Amino acid sequence: MLTIGVDIGGTKIAAGVVDPAGQILDKVKYPTPSDDPAALAEVVAKAVDELRARRGAVEAVGVGVAGFVDEDRATVQVAVNLGLREEPLRDRVRERVGLPVVIENDANAAAWAEARFGAGRGSDHIVCVTLGTGIGGGLVIGGTLHRGRYGVAAEIGHYRMVPNGRRCACGNHGCWEQYASGRALVAEGQDRARTDPRAAERMLKLADGVVEQVQGHVITQAALEGDPAALECFAAVGEWAGLGLADLAAILDPECFVLGGGVSDAGAIILEPVRASFARHVPGRPNRRLADVRLAELGGEAGIVGAGDLARH
Amino acid sequence: MLTIGVDIGGTKIAAGVVDPAGQILDKVKYPTPSDDPAALAEVVAKAVDELRARRGAVEAVGVGVAGFVDEDRATVQVAVNLGLREEPLRDRVRERVGLPVVIENDANAAAWAEARFGAGRGSDHIVCVTLGTGIGGGLVIGGTLHRGRYGVAAEIGHYRMVPNGRRCACGNHGCWEQYASGRALVAEGQDRARTDPRAAERMLKLADGVVEQVQGHVITQAALEGDPAALECFAAVGEWAGLGLADLAAILDPECFVLGGGVSDAGAIILEPVRASFARHVPGRPNRRLADVRLAELGGEAGIVGAGDLARH
Amino acid sequence: MLTIGVDIGGTKIAAGVVDPAGQILDKVKYPTPSDDPAALAEVVAKAVDELRARRGAVEAVGVGVAGFVDEDRATVQVAVNLGLREEPLRDRVRERVGLPVVIENDANAAAWAEARFGAGRGSDHIVCVTLGTGIGGGLVIGGTLHRGRYGVAAEIGHYRMVPNGRRCACGNHGCWEQYASGRALVAEGQDRARTDPRAAERMLKLADGVVEQVQGHVITQAALEGDPAALECFAAVGEWAGLGLADLAAILDPECFVLGGGVSDAGAIILEPVRASFARHVPGRPNRRLADVRLAELGGEAGIVGAGDLARH
Amino acid sequence: MLTIGVDIGGTKIAAGVVDPAGQILDKVKYPTPSDDPAALAEVVAKAVDELRARRGAVEAVGVGVAGFVDEDRATVQVAVNLGLREEPLRDRVRERVGLPVVIENDANAAAWAEARFGAGRGSDHIVCVTLGTGIGGGLVIGGTLHRGRYGVAAEIGHYRMVPNGRRCACGNHGCWEQYASGRALVAEGQDRARTDPRAAERMLKLADGVVEQVQGHVITQAALEGDPAALECFAAVGEWAGLGLADLAAILDPECFVLGGGVSDAGAIILEPVRASFARHVPGRPNRRLADVRLAELGGEAGIVGAGDLARH
Repeated sequence: MLTIGVDIGGTKIAAGVVDPAGQILDKVKYPTPSDDPAALAEVVAKAVDELRARRGAVEAVGVGVAGFVDEDRATVQVAVNLGLREEPLRDRVRERVGLPVVIENDANAAAWAEARFGAGRGSDHIVCVTLGTGIGGGLVIGGTLHRGRYGVAAEIGHYRMVPNGRRCACGNHGCWEQYASGRALVAEGQDRARTDPRAAERMLKLADGVVEQVQGHVITQAALEGDPAALECFAAVGEWAGLGLADLAAILDPECFVLGGGVSDAGAIILEPVRASFARHVPGRPNRRLADVRLAELGGEAGIVGAGDLARH
Repeated sequence: MLTIGVDIGGTKIAAGVVDPAGQILDKVKYPTPSDDPAALAEVVAKAVDELRARRGAVEAVGVGVAGFVDEDRATVQVAVNLGLREEPLRDRVRERVGLPVVIENDANAAAWAEARFGAGRGSDHIVCVTLGTGIGGGLVIGGTLHRGRYGVAAEIGHYRMVPNGRRCACGNHGCWEQYASGRALVAEGQDRARTDPRAAERMLKLADGVVEQVQGHVITQAALEGDPAALECFAAVGEWAGLGLADLAAILDPECFVLGGGVSDAGAIILEPVRASFARHVPGRPNRRLADVRLAELGGEAGIVGAGDLARH
Repeated sequence: MLTIGVDIGGTKIAAGVVDPAGQILDKVKYPTPSDDPAALAEVVAKAVDELRARRGAVEAVGVGVAGFVDEDRATVQVAVNLGLREEPLRDRVRERVGLPVVIENDANAAAWAEARFGAGRGSDHIVCVTLGTGIGGGLVIGGTLHRGRYGVAAEIGHYRMVPNGRRCACGNHGCWEQYASGRALVAEGQDRARTDPRAAERMLKLADGVVEQVQGHVITQAALEGDPAALECFAAVGEWAGLGLADLAAILDPECFVLGGGVSDAGAIILEPVRASFARHVPGRPNRRLADVRLAELGGEAGIVGAGDLARH
Repeated sequence: MLTIGVDIGGTKIAAGVVDPAGQILDKVKYPTPSDDPAALAEVVAKAVDELRARRGAVEAVGVGVAGFVDEDRATVQVAVNLGLREEPLRDRVRERVGLPVVIENDANAAAWAEARFGAGRGSDHIVCVTLGTGIGGGLVIGGTLHRGRYGVAAEIGHYRMVPNGRRCACGNHGCWEQYASGRALVAEGQDRARTDPRAAERMLKLADGVVEQVQGHVITQAALEGDPAALECFAAVGEWAGLGLADLAAILDPECFVLGGGVSDAGAIILEPVRASFARHVPGRPNRRLADVRLAELGGEAGIVGAGDLARH
């Protein structure tokens, strides 16, 4: 049977019809209405209606959203970027579409997609790490998505990497995502552009000479061209990312790590330093088998696929 | 049906008949033979024989051992303190006793006992933290003991708390157990005794004036008497312990933490600073429900109970 | 003979006639003209004229300014808050007033005043630490103000306290002033108000319930009333401040530290935790004599007195 | 006039006749008597006698010793390696030789020699950093050796680099010398040899396959041959060393740093990473002039030359 997966992002809502093999058969997109929970549910319903009109019967709807989702997969407790708080999104959508609905954390949904149909397929113990603006995560343990007791497991971007470290928007200091995310990569690049413009010449050129325009795509392009300063930025971020994987391996002993998110678009340029750092820092060497570190395979559609598939189970 | 649980420690081997309610019906103890794997299996078998002679039929045998156990629960990959390496302990014991046998990591076995019959009963998501000489751990996730892909999950004492921090015997720097274990408590106490003997007067008195004799029981006794310097030692260790729980909550979102091991014998004196530090440092506050932090209930027998119960399932 | 000391701040310019005993005999104030170096020199000259008109002959003029001053005490290399860059302030003022003029870093000037006439008098080796919004410093070594080879010594607020620590406006991470300044105190207070409003009740009350209004004077007042949460904020900042003094003592072995700046207005409430932390962390204990830690005595006038006195020598 | 400089080391006592140009005209050596202060003074006197017999009249004697020397340059407060405590070494030697005698900290003596006749000549503001087994230091400020108020300035190896960092023999944690000394270099090398023997193949070969024999000379030789693993060891140590120089520059603003000690025998292999790290981390860039970082020039004789020259002034 088919299901519909919905991925609610800060700027757009993407929905797709997902088959049992994880294929998206059809897809629609709408802009995200801002700060209006009722309108949000309405747009989700409209997307579902449209897809059903085009593709016929579906069994259930899964909705991925960036925020804390409660353990019943019904209520969005907090979604800062969408302005949601204690929002009964499941019931709102269910009333409107008349189908079973589940709400999922978006990083969990994407992780599930990678585990079932992407880089993690065949493994029962998987840690997905999304190196986006911040760091998101999803844990598959014993073949099951691990949501935690209260629905908020896998907030791995906010475990503490450095005591008394860099301030994080979450209120704590030293969170992992301050060191190993896309934002951290940009901070590295801009820092070099500011304090050593000669070494950062290529990045600055690609940024029209403006330090603030040294963004992720600029650093990635320069690195792909072989620019040493840009490669150093990835090496620094990869070192911190690998340190985090080492900690997660000490705690969880997974079979593989799947790296996704914008930073992972750089491919081997980020994968190699992450692997090297992980191997050097993981405790228990050489008496343990090392988890594999792989790039995600499903790209931006993982959220739709995962939400759709989780609605089925 | 009854099973037998065996707890192989560095100095003694304790075995007991365990009933389905987690009660130990009978118990024997032998000294641990040193550096002789064959003798070790023989002593385990002798203990099993004796208990069967006294108590009649048992279904299976579970053996807890401090070391890396492979995912088949058959081979001890490394157990430094027992001098074992790639030791096929399950088959050795099974041949001798003619019963189903499973080998378990001892901290996992103890965690399982607390989860089923102790401080964690009723919860499906539990993190057990053993504050002994070092730090051991056990994870119960979705009601199941989480061993990891290769059997070495929950080595939580060796996740990195401080980059470039204190050197650990494992070869890494900054491992959690360098800050929040019994050894860390002793380091705190001796440090105070050495650099500020006046403030540490009570601890030194209990240690016959010898800094090196400021050991865990001395610090605990002084703290129970209300000695400020000893209480500061527990506060420092509790602060670091709580920081670790905050990280584990960010990753796993458990329902409760169970604190065991020698340090936890101090009761509220360690529990309160751990709870306060945990509450202050956990990310996601105040938008998340806090996991409960509790003291273990089964004491030193948790290993026997857990090993016995795991053999049953 | 008399001199004139001038203290150029971000909002006002204060000038005074200083006698050889460090007394201010007369004083004037003007608002600081913004982003106009010529106007700035003009206002300084006007203040000098006015004081000479009232008090008669003076020997020389010393001008303190918050910024990097070159080793000739002639040029302000950078003064971010005043919008100055490679500004020949000495010559501008000298042309206008026809007297010998020296430019000094303002923290150096204040340190010199404390060394000669304030808390440091009688000592030849003094480290002044100004716990203001950030941290400024001044070193008196062998009875002489130590300006360094290029005029920028004693930038003690920017030595690194925590590798990979909190980001600083200077571009580095982990600078001391991110942990032990007035800004750090406010961050502590607001953090508590945000994550534990019950404990921070008194501070919030004094701040009309608005987290952002938990500023230095609010925390200080609550602490003076004995509020535990506010005292904890000072204890945290004092701990970091003492760690810094310990490092400076390892390097410089001064006879005393003089603590000034707005944070020091709290008196014993900040002095005691700083002293305790310093004593516990300084290397070489118990084989070394501890430097004394004292509060500054001259308050906000130290800058005028120091600039005036340095013009004399 | 000539003087005699004496360098008391843990295994030998070296003395030399020093002329006003810093040349050693004649030299003698004796083994260091162990744990016998009287014998120690006697050997120093014997060395002085012998040199006077051979070279004629000398003006004064300067004695360098590894330990805390009081501000009167008379008493060795503590010299752990020599078993001295509150030892009136100046008077003991003076009585025996009938000449003016001064006692100096050995690192201070060596720093003075470099400042006057070695890599620092011509500069008035110099920080000497001795990267030996630990880290020693000497400060020349305003053309004068800075001993501090109580004679124990420039204990730069024990300023705190990492809060809660590696334990140091001094009792503190995170001292600079735990990261940037010869001992730290050896720890890096042995760590690699242990956890990644393939990458450390060349170092292990030079160490006859024994991890414990991967000592400083082995790592240096491999690095000079271009071995990547050995070069990484120097890069890691150089990174930490440069971080320390950045802090010292923030505090002292010297004209140059002089790097001596066994680690500096590797020349450019250590100098380049130190310089790069220093330039990247020093606060105030690009608005400040960078201190020069140079290798020491006088090698092992700096102690004799400096002690001799300091006796003259």
